[in-house]
Amino acid sequence: MEMPTLFIGQKLIYLKKTESTNSFAIQLIENNPEKVMDGMIISAEQQTAGKGQFNRKWISNPGENLTFSLILKPSFLRPEKLFYLNKCICVSITETINAFAMNSCIKWPNDIYVSDKKICGILIENKIKNQQIEFCVAGIGINVNQTVFPEDITATSLKIETGKNIPKDSVLQVFCSKFEKNYLKLKQDIKHFDNVYLQKLKGVNKWQQFRVKNLTASLLIKGVDELGHLITQDQNGNIQKWLSGELQWINEP
Amino acid sequence: MEMPTLFIGQKLIYLKKTESTNSFAIQLIENNPEKVMDGMIISAEQQTAGKGQFNRKWISNPGENLTFSLILKPSFLRPEKLFYLNKCICVSITETINAFAMNSCIKWPNDIYVSDKKICGILIENKIKNQQIEFCVAGIGINVNQTVFPEDITATSLKIETGKNIPKDSVLQVFCSKFEKNYLKLKQDIKHFDNVYLQKLKGVNKWQQFRVKNLTASLLIKGVDELGHLITQDQNGNIQKWLSGELQWINEP
Repeated sequence: MEMPTLFIGQKLIYLKKTESTNSFAIQLIENNPEKVMDGMIISAEQQTAGKGQFNRKWISNPGENLTFSLILKPSFLRPEKLFYLNKCICVSITETINAFAMNSCIKWPNDIYVSDKKICGILIENKIKNQQIEFCVAGIGINVNQTVFPEDITATSLKIETGKNIPKDSVLQVFCSKFEKNYLKLKQDIKHFDNVYLQKLKGVNKWQQFRVKNLTASLLIKGVDELGHLITQDQNGNIQKWLSGELQWINEP
Repeated sequence: MEMPTLFIGQKLIYLKKTESTNSFAIQLIENNPEKVMDGMIISAEQQTAGKGQFNRKWISNPGENLTFSLILKPSFLRPEKLFYLNKCICVSITETINAFAMNSCIKWPNDIYVSDKKICGILIENKIKNQQIEFCVAGIGINVNQTVFPEDITATSLKIETGKNIPKDSVLQVFCSKFEKNYLKLKQDIKHFDNVYLQKLKGVNKWQQFRVKNLTASLLIKGVDELGHLITQDQNGNIQKWLSGELQWINEP
């Protein structure tokens, strides 16, 4: 596959089947660090044990969707700024989805949505060695040609949204191109992503229902801070900061 | 080996020979996460490719010294507080060394010294998954019974300092006991370690010669901040903050 980039995806390992592309990438880095380049991609037709957030499984019909891991070595980034890499990746995915004529947004912290349905999930695993980022592995699953999803999942795909079969390679090419531009921007001007991310943030400046342990709370979404906490305001004007996992979205009916 | 602890070192894997106990631990976690407990230890008689800071090798005579990796899952700690785990480990090692009747201190960022000679090195590797610490692997090498070191290394050992052969198992037992106490303290009161660490910091409130790229600088050591930067003051009263790697110590003659 011809990749319209300088280094992102120029080295690509394609697997028919693997447990999880993130696990494959992490093992590769541990065993052969000298073979791993910034921007390398591990792509798989089928994951038998794909990983999602909070040790959930990532399930995807074999062959229908794009599932890959992007290996990065952002030596310019300090560990305390890691959430900016998440911002940069999320923004790049929305741009990729939008290139196929639709409007996507970022559902905090790590999902990409189109019209209230999930189209992409991201799992970023980082290795920090004595206060330095050694590598980041971003596992990305984009629903491309799958049209039937389990009943309990509110998901969509590029095919459902456009009505057309989309070659997975094209989606990967667009992503690599968008991400490369944004990654270079991140290196130059990290703060750029505060605003761009906020513009794409689902529900920003809107009241939203959340579940907090056994309670239901109505909270106004204000933004996301440097460390990735969601910033909200309640009806009394009090500001809260949340970790992912402390807060569950309750979807509008 | 009987371990005088509740959980630190209660699960111990002993290897005659391995490339690096840290690499062994990381592979174990990737392949069998369900088998890995908080406080588990991988110890090796001999490391064939021991890892130090900045991809330096850690060289130790086979059998003479204590080389092990401690696996931790500090789910109570936020990724931005990771340096506190480093503080907690460094403090525990000085307490361990001091239990054998000597006076040790912490040479920023990651070495333990006795009378201007290195007695222990630490390499901490962390895995962060979507803003959560998944695990930390602390590789620790304590010079126990080695008495001859390469000429270019200013090192010492428990045997050199005490004149006695010390059983390595005793050193590990003392460490596990000291660390368990401190790890539980860290969970309760993270700030406790600011002061304790500062008291053990080599050269604190003293002027010290450093090399900064090609320059030599005389700097007053003020402390270490939350993120692990060394805080110094120059002769004009200006405050600087340094990452490890930006600054090299020049030892007094």
